[in-house]
Amino acid sequence: MSIITIERKVLEKNDQIAQRNRQFFKERGIFALNFVSSPGAGKTSILEKTFGELRGSAKIAVIEGDVQTDLDARRVAQYGVPVVQIVTMGGCHLEANLVHDALQNLDLAGVEMLFIENVGNLVCPSGYDLGEATKVVVLSTTEGDDKPLKYPAMFRNSSVLIINKTDLIPYVNCDLNTLRGNALKINPALKVFEISCFTGSGIAEWCNWLKKKDASGL
Amino acid sequence: MSIITIERKVLEKNDQIAQRNRQFFKERGIFALNFVSSPGAGKTSILEKTFGELRGSAKIAVIEGDVQTDLDARRVAQYGVPVVQIVTMGGCHLEANLVHDALQNLDLAGVEMLFIENVGNLVCPSGYDLGEATKVVVLSTTEGDDKPLKYPAMFRNSSVLIINKTDLIPYVNCDLNTLRGNALKINPALKVFEISCFTGSGIAEWCNWLKKKDASGL
Repeated sequence: MSIITIERKVLEKNDQIAQRNRQFFKERGIFALNFVSSPGAGKTSILEKTFGELRGSAKIAVIEGDVQTDLDARRVAQYGVPVVQIVTMGGCHLEANLVHDALQNLDLAGVEMLFIENVGNLVCPSGYDLGEATKVVVLSTTEGDDKPLKYPAMFRNSSVLIINKTDLIPYVNCDLNTLRGNALKINPALKVFEISCFTGSGIAEWCNWLKKKDASGL
Repeated sequence: MSIITIERKVLEKNDQIAQRNRQFFKERGIFALNFVSSPGAGKTSILEKTFGELRGSAKIAVIEGDVQTDLDARRVAQYGVPVVQIVTMGGCHLEANLVHDALQNLDLAGVEMLFIENVGNLVCPSGYDLGEATKVVVLSTTEGDDKPLKYPAMFRNSSVLIINKTDLIPYVNCDLNTLRGNALKINPALKVFEISCFTGSGIAEWCNWLKKKDASGL
């Protein structure tokens, strides 16, 4: 019982800091997105494609979260985007205070969009609000079409689903209609994009949606 | 600090029960394997291929771990293998007491190998001993060759690495030599198998290795 109590306190404390982050973003007119997925679903590749598509139309900054290494921050930095890497040292998800600390080290002058790339984990990050306007869950077709049913919390708590690696559909055991249906069964309000970072298919549609958003995600 | 203390107590308690499970397996001559991976890396498909290859040469039982659904237990049951599904209801990893409870509901008569399929999560299950003889980490080529560096604990704590979906190598951004090198950099003692559940490549080698193991994993 004591563990449950402490866990609730941890979440309450996290939610308080998340609300402060949310207020911070609102005051500065920054649209913040929290990208979550399994390892290797393609979050960083989607960011790279998005930088290319939004160049000149929106100033972007990035917070990278990883268990170890700054490999992703290095990839992102090549695009000239302000980026801070959070290394969780074994931690399985980002928390609002880590994002708060990262914001102190990020050049936010003129920034209109903040992409927060969470640790690759389809379970734990679902319970931790970071103060984002929108949580985006990325699922690769290679993971199979049953994943929304097996990991429902992440799909229930997100408002956008990006299905990535659609170019691999001919080679993997994944039916797009079944995958979309399973996701919408868990969360009928999900906005779904189907993309391929390899061929570029669907990237424009996703970025057009992004461009229309204001800081509150509306 | 109190959270760290309690976490340590949780792990100590888990390790005690894991040792009891280990003793249980040893007394009954059961080789127990703990399969860990990201969601959709192919753990269940590997079990299915392994049942086919080992039919007649070893009696197998399975414990399935999932956040939600009994989809995997249903897949496994089709092969006539005794199986128990653990649904963690949001929990991000299996613990030794869950495995202990599952063992009470499993027909272990004549069983020589127990496959425990953990929750799909490349982070959290790494810290929880279940009493297995061998931890097997499965990584799909579609996840990319940098994953051992980004999620090192799982590769450090495993003794076998199965690289799955080698048939997709022509279509994904993954170099097998780099992947193998990164894994061995984290854990030089890893036994590495490269397989494709789709073409069947490498399955025989993996199963031949399995057949030679006794209950202690030697």
